[in-house]
Amino acid sequence: MQPPTAILETHLLTIGSAIKNMHVLILANGSPPPRDLAQRVAATADLIIATDGAAMKAYDLGLQPHLICGDFDSIDKAHASQLFPAAEIVVAPNQDYADLEKSLQLARDRGATQVTVLGATGGRLDHTLANLALLLSWHRTMTLCIQEANTFLWCLSANRNSPSKRILPTQPDDIISVIAIEPAILSIHGVQWEADHLLLQPGTRAVSNKALGRNVEIELVQGTVFLCLLSSSIRETPAP
Amino acid sequence: MQPPTAILETHLLTIGSAIKNMHVLILANGSPPPRDLAQRVAATADLIIATDGAAMKAYDLGLQPHLICGDFDSIDKAHASQLFPAAEIVVAPNQDYADLEKSLQLARDRGATQVTVLGATGGRLDHTLANLALLLSWHRTMTLCIQEANTFLWCLSANRNSPSKRILPTQPDDIISVIAIEPAILSIHGVQWEADHLLLQPGTRAVSNKALGRNVEIELVQGTVFLCLLSSSIRETPAP
Repeated sequence: MQPPTAILETHLLTIGSAIKNMHVLILANGSPPPRDLAQRVAATADLIIATDGAAMKAYDLGLQPHLICGDFDSIDKAHASQLFPAAEIVVAPNQDYADLEKSLQLARDRGATQVTVLGATGGRLDHTLANLALLLSWHRTMTLCIQEANTFLWCLSANRNSPSKRILPTQPDDIISVIAIEPAILSIHGVQWEADHLLLQPGTRAVSNKALGRNVEIELVQGTVFLCLLSSSIRETPAP
Repeated sequence: MQPPTAILETHLLTIGSAIKNMHVLILANGSPPPRDLAQRVAATADLIIATDGAAMKAYDLGLQPHLICGDFDSIDKAHASQLFPAAEIVVAPNQDYADLEKSLQLARDRGATQVTVLGATGGRLDHTLANLALLLSWHRTMTLCIQEANTFLWCLSANRNSPSKRILPTQPDDIISVIAIEPAILSIHGVQWEADHLLLQPGTRAVSNKALGRNVEIELVQGTVFLCLLSSSIRETPAP
């Protein structure tokens, strides 16, 4: 489940490569996020990438992408450059991978340690699924979050030799859902329905738990899960 | 990855239990499908189940559910009975599982061999994810399809001792996407970009292939994948 390499058919470039703990915002070409949310996330990002046709959505949202990356089949390069004259155009024509996957590799190559993806959901169901699969592939490489309005989605995996622990900053009544994609064993504390070493099968078993206070602690000792936080108020991406 | 048992806190009942090759339509409480699609699928179903509050959506869509199943927190029983006096009300108060999972168990207990779920997507992201996880759990038990307008989603899994082969009835230019959730090995024929024993990692690698003719053949020899068909015209759920 390592991310594929050598997707990009471009030279490594240098924007952002000197920044430590670099937070990258990637705007993908699914349903656009609310304008205020996009601008709030952009304000915390060191680097903003728009994938291909999402450049037009970035324009409508008032974002200024530093990079526009893709095969340029949804927008032509001239139009992208006209919208954002200062942006670097990264042409990645490889048809084997979607533009979001190419953009993740670009983000990694520029030094990203934390990536927030907006616009990854709400379009075609197969695109949404493929974007969710990117969380599965890439979450070990960087802190990767798909955000949809006030909903934050991460992936977490562990095995008996290498448990994973996350402390999520929450507000009371935030909703926490854990969805296993294979049998998982986990403990969860700081919620209405706590659990210790719960064997979680794929399904709806651990959906819609509720945060009691300022922290929810999740310890996974086996398996791979999606971890979903539905926040009760608008705020920036928490970095667990 | 076997589905959990004993979710339902009700007696086994008898509607539909004598039908062979029983096709069940479950209407879940996400984004409602187009009215004409709902009615076309319903016309091919031997049994129609609405999950809890989806009973109101069924009413709006002109469907007549035989069963309404859930914890009745989104609609009260009296209201459900008023909308559909002939429907059987199946109260399943167990809060550990969502109403769609309870409805799948009900469908199985009534003898379902093929289940089409409408309204499983498009609501809360964690609900959509949990419903996708139900495909992972239940696809070995029955032919299970999540349908969203003209998009059909199945799950397929295999191991070296037990390969899986599917022949999808297609139309030229239908889009076929295969999304792995773990490293998978598969062959695909009858499409624009054919592959033999392709090692597919989770990600966007095999998204947006195109059917050339009336059949697409997929053989999986290892792993678990989502198999997504985007049909170019409205039609009933194909049964691969």
